Amino acid sequence: MGLNRKLGTLPKGSKNNICDVPGIKVGHKTLSDGIIQTGVTAIIPAEGSLFRDKLEAGLSILNGFGKSAGLIQIEELGTLETPILMTNTLSVGTALNALTKYMLQQNPEIGNTTGTVNCVVTECNDGEINDIRGLHVKEEDVFYALDSATEDFEEGAVGAGRGMVCFGLKGGIGSSSRVLSLEEKDYFIGAMVLSNFGGPGRLVIEGEKIVPKSIDAFGGDKGSIIMIIATDLPLSSRQLKRLARRSAISLGRTGSVMGNGSGDIALAFSTAQRISHFPKEAFQKRSYLHEEHIEKVFVAAIEAVEESIYSALYHAEAMVNRKGEEVHSLREYWNE
Amino acid sequence: MGLNRKLGTLPKGSKNNICDVPGIKVGHKTLSDGIIQTGVTAIIPAEGSLFRDKLEAGLSILNGFGKSAGLIQIEELGTLETPILMTNTLSVGTALNALTKYMLQQNPEIGNTTGTVNCVVTECNDGEINDIRGLHVKEEDVFYALDSATEDFEEGAVGAGRGMVCFGLKGGIGSSSRVLSLEEKDYFIGAMVLSNFGGPGRLVIEGEKIVPKSIDAFGGDKGSIIMIIATDLPLSSRQLKRLARRSAISLGRTGSVMGNGSGDIALAFSTAQRISHFPKEAFQKRSYLHEEHIEKVFVAAIEAVEESIYSALYHAEAMVNRKGEEVHSLREYWNE
Amino acid sequence: MGLNRKLGTLPKGSKNNICDVPGIKVGHKTLSDGIIQTGVTAIIPAEGSLFRDKLEAGLSILNGFGKSAGLIQIEELGTLETPILMTNTLSVGTALNALTKYMLQQNPEIGNTTGTVNCVVTECNDGEINDIRGLHVKEEDVFYALDSATEDFEEGAVGAGRGMVCFGLKGGIGSSSRVLSLEEKDYFIGAMVLSNFGGPGRLVIEGEKIVPKSIDAFGGDKGSIIMIIATDLPLSSRQLKRLARRSAISLGRTGSVMGNGSGDIALAFSTAQRISHFPKEAFQKRSYLHEEHIEKVFVAAIEAVEESIYSALYHAEAMVNRKGEEVHSLREYWNE
Amino acid sequence: MGLNRKLGTLPKGSKNNICDVPGIKVGHKTLSDGIIQTGVTAIIPAEGSLFRDKLEAGLSILNGFGKSAGLIQIEELGTLETPILMTNTLSVGTALNALTKYMLQQNPEIGNTTGTVNCVVTECNDGEINDIRGLHVKEEDVFYALDSATEDFEEGAVGAGRGMVCFGLKGGIGSSSRVLSLEEKDYFIGAMVLSNFGGPGRLVIEGEKIVPKSIDAFGGDKGSIIMIIATDLPLSSRQLKRLARRSAISLGRTGSVMGNGSGDIALAFSTAQRISHFPKEAFQKRSYLHEEHIEKVFVAAIEAVEESIYSALYHAEAMVNRKGEEVHSLREYWNE
Repeated sequence: MGLNRKLGTLPKGSKNNICDVPGIKVGHKTLSDGIIQTGVTAIIPAEGSLFRDKLEAGLSILNGFGKSAGLIQIEELGTLETPILMTNTLSVGTALNALTKYMLQQNPEIGNTTGTVNCVVTECNDGEINDIRGLHVKEEDVFYALDSATEDFEEGAVGAGRGMVCFGLKGGIGSSSRVLSLEEKDYFIGAMVLSNFGGPGRLVIEGEKIVPKSIDAFGGDKGSIIMIIATDLPLSSRQLKRLARRSAISLGRTGSVMGNGSGDIALAFSTAQRISHFPKEAFQKRSYLHEEHIEKVFVAAIEAVEESIYSALYHAEAMVNRKGEEVHSLREYWNE
Repeated sequence: MGLNRKLGTLPKGSKNNICDVPGIKVGHKTLSDGIIQTGVTAIIPAEGSLFRDKLEAGLSILNGFGKSAGLIQIEELGTLETPILMTNTLSVGTALNALTKYMLQQNPEIGNTTGTVNCVVTECNDGEINDIRGLHVKEEDVFYALDSATEDFEEGAVGAGRGMVCFGLKGGIGSSSRVLSLEEKDYFIGAMVLSNFGGPGRLVIEGEKIVPKSIDAFGGDKGSIIMIIATDLPLSSRQLKRLARRSAISLGRTGSVMGNGSGDIALAFSTAQRISHFPKEAFQKRSYLHEEHIEKVFVAAIEAVEESIYSALYHAEAMVNRKGEEVHSLREYWNE
Repeated sequence: MGLNRKLGTLPKGSKNNICDVPGIKVGHKTLSDGIIQTGVTAIIPAEGSLFRDKLEAGLSILNGFGKSAGLIQIEELGTLETPILMTNTLSVGTALNALTKYMLQQNPEIGNTTGTVNCVVTECNDGEINDIRGLHVKEEDVFYALDSATEDFEEGAVGAGRGMVCFGLKGGIGSSSRVLSLEEKDYFIGAMVLSNFGGPGRLVIEGEKIVPKSIDAFGGDKGSIIMIIATDLPLSSRQLKRLARRSAISLGRTGSVMGNGSGDIALAFSTAQRISHFPKEAFQKRSYLHEEHIEKVFVAAIEAVEESIYSALYHAEAMVNRKGEEVHSLREYWNE
Repeated sequence: MGLNRKLGTLPKGSKNNICDVPGIKVGHKTLSDGIIQTGVTAIIPAEGSLFRDKLEAGLSILNGFGKSAGLIQIEELGTLETPILMTNTLSVGTALNALTKYMLQQNPEIGNTTGTVNCVVTECNDGEINDIRGLHVKEEDVFYALDSATEDFEEGAVGAGRGMVCFGLKGGIGSSSRVLSLEEKDYFIGAMVLSNFGGPGRLVIEGEKIVPKSIDAFGGDKGSIIMIIATDLPLSSRQLKRLARRSAISLGRTGSVMGNGSGDIALAFSTAQRISHFPKEAFQKRSYLHEEHIEKVFVAAIEAVEESIYSALYHAEAMVNRKGEEVHSLREYWNE
């Protein structure tokens, strides 16, 4: 979905979301009932068995004030072997349990004739709006998000984004994409964020400071942001890590200071080539983009993440927080 | 407990386990019923509220083929704010849920008037002996381990160590300690391991190769090891990270090759000084060991981790694995 | 010096350069003769013997496409024990030799009764303007920069900044500072950059795109930037590393994409407390800012680095590159 | 050369040195005249232009108390583009200058029509034996080492190893190799070390403690070790980094504690595939070993590094240190 206006220099994909990268699907389960304002979002990163045919992946922990699970093994092995979940911070355990069961069901060999599985669960703290102590996310909510994944997903205050706050405005889920042409073929770089960061009053969109009247001019940056970057370009885990690291530039453009309490984490994966869990041969043939051409991929990722953030804010409707205060929507102050 | 023989160069503490560091307690919940052979071990790293008065901590991911939770924030902030749990790989979600509830109960401010909490859960894969796919660990098992923690805990095939295998022999929980004298005061360096690593036939104890007849001479290193190092010496998170990294030396002494599939992770913390969650003053007075004196702390940690590994093997009784094969005890081949 | 206009939210120091942090001095040696357009800049980070009484330091390698020397030991030990040099990429060896001799002369114990010394030399590639293959920097140029260091130093196309290019405009040396008040005392955060990064046409100043007519709209980011951050606040090496990492936000604000070939490196140090090379006691008393108060330090560093970049561009006069093309000054297109 | 006895489990190459990996050559320049006891060693890692056709490389900084140059860019880009030099700590600048000139001469495009070059210079402190403050290594010594490189090089107290001390015995240059058979082809894993680490009295060889009478039982670990690992197996930079990290196991086997002052650094490269500086196509075809087969490569590297260390000690003749004390040779206490 993203925004309807031009942002940055590169063309957008037709969906203008992470699903422009072929094979990706996204599902939400939104919980909204009184003080329960939270949820789960699932990204299915590719078709087929992710465990048996893994994806290359890399990540950057821009600020490690966060509780995501499954990142260490990606750093070591450079592979992603499960869907990626997003939820609230205190529900990581439940999401991990559900994703574990989901993977066990799909892969009878896990923990039996082969090793275990590295489930990826990311999180932000939605405690300003949601009764996060209530641990309201249940395993069936996770299964629902996984099973309902589609290429046309909603953005804004949905799924894991339900209770998120960003720059003092209502945050949530946002997505966008960019297209690159290389050797006469189009490739896609898609981004999706769970956006819960940014000090009130610090938001900047394309150089314009957005200071809602409802907000004190300066506030601490206590949230977090999870940034997922996907591409069908053949990139190595080392290159994907470099890509992920560029998300700091996107944050800089939006007004973030990567505040002390903000767990700012970026994870990038490529769907171009699979890495078999049960290899038939000792040596595997691969193809990789030469580093000489990577800068435009950096630009695409930076723009897609940046637009995803604004899109999350734009599509999130105003809500009331636990203190009864209105958390305004960006739409009240800014139009695409 | 550790071993009764001298190992290395430094004197041992009177308990010869991690609880020689004042304030530390360890609890187990062992599940043993047919194909269910697993459990939970909890380390309470200090007295009082860990959340309100945190400990300094540092870690080293020697080989990141692992699924532990809570490590990223320790790397960023250098603090530990919960007990440390150990369990089997597929039960991390359950342990995380239980530890989250435990912390919420003890700290009504979490997720309400302050941020969330970074729960630390470590793991190894006990699937060779245990029906790991059955997800048999329940939240009440975690609470039991936490609530029953004591200074005199068992080693061997207990708690999280119940189903572990190490160098083709029965592995599990081991612990040991060393004493250092500095400026006329005694300080303690304690270690505790969840020992599940090592290719069959590769075990070495003080230079002696231990090759049980029951084992093929060469086998892959498919396990993992979690190594916890504790001290009452005032060390900074940077110094604790250096300490944790030395556990690779302990592994080298035992015959490990830090195999591809072995999640080898070390976590070190100091109980000497607390870091307040709600500081009264902007500047905090601290005291730290000068780096000039750190080498003997390295030696103490290396020896304590090394002995912990042998102790885990020594105290673990033989068991039968899921295939019906005997997993022998080190005691059958070696005596202290 | 910095800029005369307000930039960001925090007050500036009276000098508005890195020397607002008490004890810091900066010296330049500029080489300008035909195709020789290069130089050396030296930062003396504190008074007294840096080797015997070291400073705490931390760094962030945002993009490691760079050839700086001395960074690895800072990462390990968290200390800075020499002045910091800046020069062109191919002159790092010469600068290292000169700084080594400078340290040996001041400290007869180095390499004799104690260990060696970790000299810090940073660099950017000035080959677009300078005959970098000519290796024109001599050891006496380095000594001159070190010996002539003062609190009132020039910015722009001077010292190591002589031949630098930034966003297709003339780059060079820039500096700025911010003031923070904590517990009724003023503290300073100063920055200094060697600015040689940024694709032509990508420059942004406070949201305003600066696209000089002389520049093609899109160009690769082939330069680099060295960002030095100094403070008299008592910060640990871990905290200084976090501070250094925030320089990515400054880069994001200016239009950088951390291009593939841009060695983007930030180094932060604190002058508040010294770490003795020859400690008298095993335990050292320290004081540190609590993390609860660090976000405003992040903001100060981000603003000081950002303004330093603009200041480098603003104070650098136009020059002609090796191809005979004019490299314009920012002043032709923008006024403070 | 290595040792004549079996060590470990894998077969050795015919030369039993790093040059078993086809294309590698090593050259020394030894300076030996009174208090001048130092030198330079050069590793030419492959035939042809390293700058135009780079090698994949990865590294591990086990303990960053060191002053090597050129490591940061290898970490970022995963490539090696120059020979690797070894020398004494205070001569890194001179070696860097010489290697820069060597690369400029061979590649007229560097700093002219393309970017600069990342020269790799490693070091250990030979100040116990050598007059390191005298800076006796000259650029012509570096050129000599580079130009005289051969497949049959000497080990022991030669080249950069001339003044090194290891476990209180005479250290220096050592090398060894292992052979692996994969899909009916032989591959080589070669190692070479500059060995200057280890507390006196801590040396262990295959479990046997070597405590020379001339040595006090316990001494600090103040040296360093540089470990180079080479292979003709097609490994990615991520895999080479994992390989380099296993050198900690080799150290553990020899009795090292990775002492505070010991800069323990490992660098691994593969000669199997070249990465072009001037790529003709955007996408590059590659082949990589599957991770499932990497453990035996770990074992080979561990054994080759371990034997290299013993070999350095074994081939180094006794010398007298700057205090006039005899630094004994391992041969006086131990035979192959």
